[in-house]
Amino acid sequence: MDAIGVFDSGVGGLTVAAALRRRLPRESILYLGDTARLPYGSKSPETVTRYTLRNIEFLVERGVKAVVVACNTASALALPRLVPDLHLELPTWGVIEPGARKAASVTRGRVGIIATDATVRSDAYPRALRALRPDLEILSQPCPLFVPLVEEGWYDDPITEQIAERYLRPLLDARVDTLVLGCTHYPLLVPVLRRVAGPDVTLVDSAEAVAEVVAAGLTEGGIESASPPSGRPEHHVCVTDAGEKFHQLAGRILGEDVTLEWVEVT
Amino acid sequence: MDAIGVFDSGVGGLTVAAALRRRLPRESILYLGDTARLPYGSKSPETVTRYTLRNIEFLVERGVKAVVVACNTASALALPRLVPDLHLELPTWGVIEPGARKAASVTRGRVGIIATDATVRSDAYPRALRALRPDLEILSQPCPLFVPLVEEGWYDDPITEQIAERYLRPLLDARVDTLVLGCTHYPLLVPVLRRVAGPDVTLVDSAEAVAEVVAAGLTEGGIESASPPSGRPEHHVCVTDAGEKFHQLAGRILGEDVTLEWVEVT
Repeated sequence: MDAIGVFDSGVGGLTVAAALRRRLPRESILYLGDTARLPYGSKSPETVTRYTLRNIEFLVERGVKAVVVACNTASALALPRLVPDLHLELPTWGVIEPGARKAASVTRGRVGIIATDATVRSDAYPRALRALRPDLEILSQPCPLFVPLVEEGWYDDPITEQIAERYLRPLLDARVDTLVLGCTHYPLLVPVLRRVAGPDVTLVDSAEAVAEVVAAGLTEGGIESASPPSGRPEHHVCVTDAGEKFHQLAGRILGEDVTLEWVEVT
Repeated sequence: MDAIGVFDSGVGGLTVAAALRRRLPRESILYLGDTARLPYGSKSPETVTRYTLRNIEFLVERGVKAVVVACNTASALALPRLVPDLHLELPTWGVIEPGARKAASVTRGRVGIIATDATVRSDAYPRALRALRPDLEILSQPCPLFVPLVEEGWYDDPITEQIAERYLRPLLDARVDTLVLGCTHYPLLVPVLRRVAGPDVTLVDSAEAVAEVVAAGLTEGGIESASPPSGRPEHHVCVTDAGEKFHQLAGRILGEDVTLEWVEVT
């Protein structure tokens, strides 16, 4: 189908799909949300790796030309294990490296990472940042309640703000100047995070950075879509479990009503 | 192995296992926490039914003599579908009916149900309650943040209390006199729920009621354990994903250190 395959544990990766659509308006996107097994952020590297492998296999069977792992947890825990093992023939990108690159380019020296438990434990962001700039001071903070708060629809809520204040306090006390949103759900919390972090902290959302990397990679590999302006790309969203909340959130992120195909991936 | 098999999506069902251990001190218990696929409470009836079937098969393969579905969501969504299909040969109990029975026996007429999204949507508690007492007024409230709050360890926390106040407000405004804790994680929130609900509301935790039903069922089926007081029961806990948080919470619920066996159930 010549599409770019994108997957996440749930709805959050649609923030990456939306960035891809803006940056690459000619490309079709096949999105897979593994909603039957979400969240990944509280689970072990072995389990997340198994799920990631199955999701990539699903996308490959559907004939995608490239894969974007739009889930920070899967990018952090599974990609480093899978890529060498699989000798993946398709171009495959995660979200850690682009996000780290962007943070390294904007920070004045102190970077805070907010992410799921599993992503923080993996040390993937600090490792990627130190490889780019060994001079950086880096602090990480797991924020396990942020995903459920987004899924509850409490994006911009006084209770969410209190929770953000508690999570971010150690980072702000340490005077980080840059905050990496290390989970694809977190861009939905930007209004709250902006208020809590204040105007002097730069928020880094890796979605745009990922879209740049993918655009460059498609060109480099000679696989960018050459359809004329009249040829319309196709966007398709698959989920491993039905859910009204996914549907609502997907509409909010993509700015349009979304039809979901329910697929089984085990 | 002649044990009672108990499963839940995660750690919460250990509150039921603990009640079984108190009520049936001679019985061995094999517990399965399906931590690789939790939570169930946000997922569809089809997916929860598939997971429940696999979990029961796992317990049956391990040779249990009876099954307790200690997960409210699985009891509400899956058991009504599975029991007629499977002609389960083993005695199998869920947690809805015992909890509803207890609530019906203590209420003065207005019952509030707090549970996961999926349990509330299933209408299982109101249906069970109306069958017992058609006169009851029943209100349900999904509380999707309670499980993540418990897993974050914020059992008794001002933020948790604010969230409980928001969730419980419609039930308290409607003057419920009884509140059913319709999720096995919620007993850990009793200090907060007690403060928010006030002294006039009776909290109903189905764990003890389930233990009574299981005790009666074992006797009725002639399969209660007859080991002499010197014979020690064996307790064993399996999980489908490793996790330090599970380990900590399990210790808190059971009051002892727990060894976990990591098993694959797909």
